[in-house]
Amino acid sequence: MSNTINMSLDDVHQLALNALTSQGFSTAQADAIATTVTAAERDECHSHGLFRIAFYVKSAANPTTDPTATPEVKLTESSVVHVNAREGFCPLALQMGLDPLRDKAMKHGIAALAIHNVYNIAALWPEVEALADQGLVAFAFTGSNAYVAPHGGTKPLFGTNPMAFSWPRANQPPLVFDQASSVSARGEIQLHAIDGKPIPAGWAIDKRGQSTTSADDALAGAQLPFGAHKGSSIALMVELLAGALIGDLFSYESTQRDTLKTGGPCGGEFLIAINPMHTLADGNVEAAQARAEHLFENILSQEGTRLPSARRFEARKRSLANGVNIPEKLHAQVLDYT
Amino acid sequence: MSNTINMSLDDVHQLALNALTSQGFSTAQADAIATTVTAAERDECHSHGLFRIAFYVKSAANPTTDPTATPEVKLTESSVVHVNAREGFCPLALQMGLDPLRDKAMKHGIAALAIHNVYNIAALWPEVEALADQGLVAFAFTGSNAYVAPHGGTKPLFGTNPMAFSWPRANQPPLVFDQASSVSARGEIQLHAIDGKPIPAGWAIDKRGQSTTSADDALAGAQLPFGAHKGSSIALMVELLAGALIGDLFSYESTQRDTLKTGGPCGGEFLIAINPMHTLADGNVEAAQARAEHLFENILSQEGTRLPSARRFEARKRSLANGVNIPEKLHAQVLDYT
Repeated sequence: MSNTINMSLDDVHQLALNALTSQGFSTAQADAIATTVTAAERDECHSHGLFRIAFYVKSAANPTTDPTATPEVKLTESSVVHVNAREGFCPLALQMGLDPLRDKAMKHGIAALAIHNVYNIAALWPEVEALADQGLVAFAFTGSNAYVAPHGGTKPLFGTNPMAFSWPRANQPPLVFDQASSVSARGEIQLHAIDGKPIPAGWAIDKRGQSTTSADDALAGAQLPFGAHKGSSIALMVELLAGALIGDLFSYESTQRDTLKTGGPCGGEFLIAINPMHTLADGNVEAAQARAEHLFENILSQEGTRLPSARRFEARKRSLANGVNIPEKLHAQVLDYT
Repeated sequence: MSNTINMSLDDVHQLALNALTSQGFSTAQADAIATTVTAAERDECHSHGLFRIAFYVKSAANPTTDPTATPEVKLTESSVVHVNAREGFCPLALQMGLDPLRDKAMKHGIAALAIHNVYNIAALWPEVEALADQGLVAFAFTGSNAYVAPHGGTKPLFGTNPMAFSWPRANQPPLVFDQASSVSARGEIQLHAIDGKPIPAGWAIDKRGQSTTSADDALAGAQLPFGAHKGSSIALMVELLAGALIGDLFSYESTQRDTLKTGGPCGGEFLIAINPMHTLADGNVEAAQARAEHLFENILSQEGTRLPSARRFEARKRSLANGVNIPEKLHAQVLDYT
């Protein structure tokens, strides 16, 4: 175990904010990113925590990225809210788009948010959780770069294409999942490569299309969709929703655009929010939530099961009580940016 | 090969209609079911074709089912359309709900349809395809009976919980997928049981929670979600969307209600329709569709890939040109109902 530093969440936020503003990010961009980075540390999603600051800095060096962009919200009579992120990062665009999305969903029963021209290297659970915290059921979809072969194929084309979903629960954090369309996250393979460890069979194929357990060969080859053709269909759906449907780049187009190979994907994010008051014939949200709790109890009554995001919420309790433990090396690395 | 009878699609429709009306279905219910059954035969989805008439008849014998129900459409200012199917079958409820859903989506950019109290034993692709034929991107979700164990568990709880998605293509049938959250359709296991053939490992577990290749043991045990915990999350999402979100039964509640063990699930169906005119910042649907075609070309340029539903549309061409070939035995069985 490497040595760690115990930090409060406020200190994590300040560290991230200082690092990003020192690297040319506007305060608004840096603050929004620092908030999602802090939430990830809080929930012990370390790969989306302070570890990711370096990735933001690297992406910002891309001449097509604008770490000072002010997103533009476009509101019309439509239930689809648009935010043009103007080549900035996603957290600020979301911060500006989520309230209008909520308002439209509250009023009309269902609404959507299209975030355009955005660099998105964050997880999707914060935004669907934020919507669920306001009583809405929510989906989020985004592409990435071309990493995943379509089922039956051998060459990277789809992104890891996460899809997130949330369900508001009474008196406790919402049920949330946020899962890649690939068997594993790309970051997991990268960590195996750094550690010189083999990856499990079934995660990826090499450049020749052969199954591989070499992390390096996997990174040079293609990741595989989860669940064979079914996960591949979901990856395709995400390409369409976050790409063609909202006029933003497909994952392979993002790769083509990333001439500096920063790995920072530019594209769109698409969200849907649903107001249960409108979908329930009797509008009785309390009863519907109680019924969902019965379903969850029925799942958990089976030994070996757990609810998606349960581990995250356990971690959150620990972090809120005790702060978080950041590896000294990571802390020094982020501090170096200031 | 058993002997077959060549029939026109009109003849298939008439045969199904006569069988159902002779068995106490109202003309409206029977006509809507016959239309989906005929579409399935046309696309060579035989398990949803005339083969399914016996299942409809058996389900209708359930005292809680009403094969003469007139669904009630409820329209308000909300973008969520409600159809109370009144314990009838889904095809008629859909027939009445799809146009209002389309109108709401066209006007507001995104809309939803909640079908309540419905017996649903049809595929979901006809409805998402119908919406895509009108230029909309669509989702559909429905539960079934408790057949699938949550990931890590050993007892059936979730339904096979299909999720369907469609994307409108210019000058050709839409891209559509309609996939169960289980590794295999339940019907596939039933066919293996009838033929006395083993099922592939990974499809199901027996009553003791052990992996099995016995179709009979699988039917008595539990099916498995596709893609381990990720497919399980999708199955859970479908339970919530088609169950608690719209106030309808979960799959395990449907099983509890099915005291005669007809296997006909009663619950809800939830649909979302999206108008690309509203999600595209420039409203240029033609350009967006052309971009999607590039994505499809990129997929198909990889040997071994295919687009979801491609086989169905190939079959459709054959059937429209030559009619369909129905096994004599199946034809006689359906004719027997008249």
